[in-house]
Amino acid sequence: MKLATLPGPSENGRLVVVSRDLKHCVAVDDIAETLLEAIRRWDDVAPALQDRFDQIEAGNDDGSAAFKAGEAMAPLPRAPQWLDGSVFQTHLDLMSQALHPERPNEPSDYPFIYQGASDDLRGPTDAISGYRFDEGIDFEGEFGVVVDEVPMRTTAADALDHVKLLVLINDVSLRAYAGREISAGFGFLQAKPSTAFAAVAVTPDELGGAWRDGRVNLPLRVERSGEWFGHPHGSEMTFHFGELIAHSAYTRLLSAGTIIGSGTVSSADRSVGSACIAERRAIEIIDSGAPSTQFLGDGETVRMEVLDDDGTSIFGEIYQPVVVDE
Amino acid sequence: MKLATLPGPSENGRLVVVSRDLKHCVAVDDIAETLLEAIRRWDDVAPALQDRFDQIEAGNDDGSAAFKAGEAMAPLPRAPQWLDGSVFQTHLDLMSQALHPERPNEPSDYPFIYQGASDDLRGPTDAISGYRFDEGIDFEGEFGVVVDEVPMRTTAADALDHVKLLVLINDVSLRAYAGREISAGFGFLQAKPSTAFAAVAVTPDELGGAWRDGRVNLPLRVERSGEWFGHPHGSEMTFHFGELIAHSAYTRLLSAGTIIGSGTVSSADRSVGSACIAERRAIEIIDSGAPSTQFLGDGETVRMEVLDDDGTSIFGEIYQPVVVDE
Repeated sequence: MKLATLPGPSENGRLVVVSRDLKHCVAVDDIAETLLEAIRRWDDVAPALQDRFDQIEAGNDDGSAAFKAGEAMAPLPRAPQWLDGSVFQTHLDLMSQALHPERPNEPSDYPFIYQGASDDLRGPTDAISGYRFDEGIDFEGEFGVVVDEVPMRTTAADALDHVKLLVLINDVSLRAYAGREISAGFGFLQAKPSTAFAAVAVTPDELGGAWRDGRVNLPLRVERSGEWFGHPHGSEMTFHFGELIAHSAYTRLLSAGTIIGSGTVSSADRSVGSACIAERRAIEIIDSGAPSTQFLGDGETVRMEVLDDDGTSIFGEIYQPVVVDE
Repeated sequence: MKLATLPGPSENGRLVVVSRDLKHCVAVDDIAETLLEAIRRWDDVAPALQDRFDQIEAGNDDGSAAFKAGEAMAPLPRAPQWLDGSVFQTHLDLMSQALHPERPNEPSDYPFIYQGASDDLRGPTDAISGYRFDEGIDFEGEFGVVVDEVPMRTTAADALDHVKLLVLINDVSLRAYAGREISAGFGFLQAKPSTAFAAVAVTPDELGGAWRDGRVNLPLRVERSGEWFGHPHGSEMTFHFGELIAHSAYTRLLSAGTIIGSGTVSSADRSVGSACIAERRAIEIIDSGAPSTQFLGDGETVRMEVLDDDGTSIFGEIYQPVVVDE
């Protein structure tokens, strides 16, 4: 089934069930007011939500309304935790080769994951605004999972059972601060402003066979200002989502509603492009000694989408205008 | 005034106003059900809470009950963000000198701050449990501030106006993971399990002149298993809380209820001891080539307290037993 959050009485919005084609939605206040509440009581409420979804799909759209993704908030506008990995080895290798060509980049035995702020997660059409051009405004196209409560010491094998929903993410980044923050070792604060999400969170069964091995085995399509930027493939995650969850929960629990991202999707095949500007710049540095692609400027747009085999948008599109603060 | 959170209907508990001597408390459900709600509507509710506090102090304790700090939760059991600095230069210098004696430690132009998990903050007497001895279980005595909503780009000078409450923190740490996590640059996950708080959050005026220059100018008293461990002084913060807030809010807002910690309190005067085991071990390494103090073991206790000039406990004591998972 597919779920989304519309503006509602609290900062957590109001949960709706969305039709598979993203054209209709139906209120489910009688089952769970918010997605956060639904995730907390998932085993109790999921059957009733699924039933409502099945009814829409069966053409029984009593009480349904047009679904306008542009009015949607993030599926979880506030989450208990937002953890974001960087586990596509191609991306890590390219960044390292461009920035530290003198150092060989050894694959890590552990996934790289940072703790992000989870109190201001943005909707699919919210402007990327308030930042200066010299802060190096960038996007990162990512897949993510939403879990129910994960006890401390959960194993990677068991962790996948906690994945209740999949999401599409634009991890907006300010590259001017990334180098200093990585060097300090304390993780990202200034380099990672509010993260944006596609409107619709889906249960893993919506992906059919494309959800396997703890990965979303689909291309993530990114356009910058109306032009193709890349469509790297989610299958190339070096660590799968079960491993990311287990790593994050090794010394503490993850409360229900925690979101874990893959980090920018990246493919070894360069012809499929990149899901962030920093990676394309890294390739330019490697190939020609200097970057030629600029970070985002005023008036640009960022679009991200994932299509199923029939060409249907799974999560709805992220479509954010960029408004630079000069 | 002094505020605390007792167990209540939701995971955010139930707000109470506590007498200055920490002996009595009174329900304030009619003003705000939880501390998180109070912080969100601080300007509206603070006068009524202060009035309730003044009445207790005036001996009008109608409806008051005995305050049992051992039953209290963290003041904010769940917070929108938990950001923790490490801004005592003495601590940074000692750790660097012990671990990397070949490298000079230059003071940073920016405060070191990591984003921690804020969805499972622990009460003052909750056991430190579930970790193995070989994970290097440690405490860190810290001061912290609770802010109302801080807009993006708030300056350090303006930031102090957002400080609504002060708290006492034990930032429980697992040292076995800290080196790897700092080297990776993505910040702390496994090295920082759930953080604990003294029961009582206080408005800055409760400290009188000891709250000045954006710092808590008092010693933080730490005992390990009944023996003095240290009483380093909060005045020695290299960056003050206003600077920590401004740094954290530079590219995003901080939602009301965000908690920002100082990092382990540390004094240049070695005779006052340390507020974490890692620092004492660093001194041992510097002085004699090897550490002799062990990390926490099963059956130990950690006690932290801050006294005002009259010897009254300001925040109540943190008193946590350690139960090691063998």
